[in-house]
Amino acid sequence: MTEFEQRRQSLAAALPGAKIDALLVSSPASIRYLTDYSGSNGLLLVTPHESHFFTDPRYGADAQAKISGTVHVSKRPLIQDAAALIKRKKLKKIGFEPGWMTVAEHQSLKENSGLGAGLNASGGLVESLRAVKSPAEIGKIRRSVQVNSEAYARTLPRIKPGLREQEIAAELDFQMRVLGAEKSAFDTIVAAGVRSALPHAHPSQHRLTESELLLIDMGAILDGYTSDMTRVCFLGNPSRQVRQMYRAVLEAQLAAIDVVRSGISVAQVDLAARKVLKQYGLEKEFIHSTGHGLGLEIHEPPRIAKKEKTKLKAGMVITIEPGAYVNRLGGVRIEDTVLVTENGCQILTPTSKEFIRL
Amino acid sequence: MTEFEQRRQSLAAALPGAKIDALLVSSPASIRYLTDYSGSNGLLLVTPHESHFFTDPRYGADAQAKISGTVHVSKRPLIQDAAALIKRKKLKKIGFEPGWMTVAEHQSLKENSGLGAGLNASGGLVESLRAVKSPAEIGKIRRSVQVNSEAYARTLPRIKPGLREQEIAAELDFQMRVLGAEKSAFDTIVAAGVRSALPHAHPSQHRLTESELLLIDMGAILDGYTSDMTRVCFLGNPSRQVRQMYRAVLEAQLAAIDVVRSGISVAQVDLAARKVLKQYGLEKEFIHSTGHGLGLEIHEPPRIAKKEKTKLKAGMVITIEPGAYVNRLGGVRIEDTVLVTENGCQILTPTSKEFIRL
Repeated sequence: MTEFEQRRQSLAAALPGAKIDALLVSSPASIRYLTDYSGSNGLLLVTPHESHFFTDPRYGADAQAKISGTVHVSKRPLIQDAAALIKRKKLKKIGFEPGWMTVAEHQSLKENSGLGAGLNASGGLVESLRAVKSPAEIGKIRRSVQVNSEAYARTLPRIKPGLREQEIAAELDFQMRVLGAEKSAFDTIVAAGVRSALPHAHPSQHRLTESELLLIDMGAILDGYTSDMTRVCFLGNPSRQVRQMYRAVLEAQLAAIDVVRSGISVAQVDLAARKVLKQYGLEKEFIHSTGHGLGLEIHEPPRIAKKEKTKLKAGMVITIEPGAYVNRLGGVRIEDTVLVTENGCQILTPTSKEFIRL
Repeated sequence: MTEFEQRRQSLAAALPGAKIDALLVSSPASIRYLTDYSGSNGLLLVTPHESHFFTDPRYGADAQAKISGTVHVSKRPLIQDAAALIKRKKLKKIGFEPGWMTVAEHQSLKENSGLGAGLNASGGLVESLRAVKSPAEIGKIRRSVQVNSEAYARTLPRIKPGLREQEIAAELDFQMRVLGAEKSAFDTIVAAGVRSALPHAHPSQHRLTESELLLIDMGAILDGYTSDMTRVCFLGNPSRQVRQMYRAVLEAQLAAIDVVRSGISVAQVDLAARKVLKQYGLEKEFIHSTGHGLGLEIHEPPRIAKKEKTKLKAGMVITIEPGAYVNRLGGVRIEDTVLVTENGCQILTPTSKEFIRL
């Protein structure tokens, strides 16, 4: 049995507990998790003893070669075919993913299956299987992290005043790809000077100058699995205020990593980072949460945030990424990809966190 | 008034016709069209006289600087804030986009606004404004097309046996970025040999050999606007069968382009391509539709397909991309980006369609 068949079997085993006869999986990442299919148009129906995959003719040959169970190839909207099958098989209680299914698809499912009350919002079933990674998945994430850090290491020596943010982003992405990544896991962020205070700035045509912060947030997708890292360096000599900000964020990041272990709540991890930033008077400048799970998606459960109640489990892979953003000065964020273990964690990201001056 | 404010005004003017007091815009491309915001988390509510934009603190500073009307920054799910505003303003008939809103968001909107029957599925309102491009938008698409073709032209001389599909894709993407593109408009397809028969193959680790087809399908995003082109070349000397297939697809593409003009139905354009392929006995090998609109999204209305009823209008920008895919032999697709005019069309893509041998 392949790992994908095993995962579908685990999902099938969870259906009775969710009180459904079948789950209709719409999330592309969950479909990849359960079938290895990574095209742009797929839908999966899992019952206790069967699996049905739906796609269009562009992906038909590939899907039929690779996915066990029944593969349905059709030119109609896939939801119509899935609904027709549900009707034909007289399935009565169908779970669907409310965070992934659109209102239009839901409407079509209702009309074509003849089910109304039989459609159950059953979010998070595959996500909870996905949250704890298998050794094979951890291996893939490790490789993704390594490729990402290596692309950063190859690019760093080429960074100098005069280069545009966008040229640096292009080089980082190119290096990831040459090293074997499918692509970047998200739009690579390269933000210099005051723009580093925008936590999700698009790389611009701005040319680096002699004395400014440079924030790089990047991740790779390799074999489907993501990585995520943020580093900040300085062109020239940073002011005392900037050095202080860097030290505060680094201490906060180390403090959060320090409390990560199986059994601890994500809120405690978040709090550990916030406490340090508060000591530096920077708690209001930390305007996002401390981290997130990653795997087949760059953001997946658990969120490492103040109000979340999840407890970490060994095998979860999360980011730890506190930051501080000061208008008209700039921003610092330091982010590693981290594997939760029974007694602590392993920092997967090998890149140094020293405050590098270029 | 900025172009974005003008577009919101056009949308506001369309609300009474759709019998709604406000439209909640969820589609990221439509939000960009109406506000110039291009981050990953935004929501827009447009009433006849107001516009309200919702985002989280990561994008707050940027959004406030750039978007007129009210900007709401919040750490909660944006749909909750939009719903609360709808309630506070006592708006009664709210349109939403069923193809873009998830079932979970719809549920939250219902609960937090107190509206049930007042929520109207109002899909396609912004899309129909977007279908006909303004001169400024056409200018941006032209630049996107040019950057895309230039990246192809720079990469072509470097292609030779021994290179991996993925290395070629990485180079194409890098060249687009260096030439000013934000990124590629979709995952660049580089498919050699029999893999060219998979219309949406991911670039693999396969190394090009001496005698095979090479299909490249690529597009850029520049200033938000996409381009789309497919070319096929051959490493070595193609067989008679392959040359015949190339000729058939090229004739089909030219025949379809030949009928494009304002007023013609998209089905007729599709038919023009199919007719030619039928003459060559390749009609069953053409397994997708003839093209699609593009703009802020790589696929937008109209679809150029058999059963569609839309009539083309001057100012629409579409792709024309027939193909033929033969198992164990390979595939050919030829695709240009084309501007519909009153009396015909302009082929925007400047790249030659000669069957190049590398």
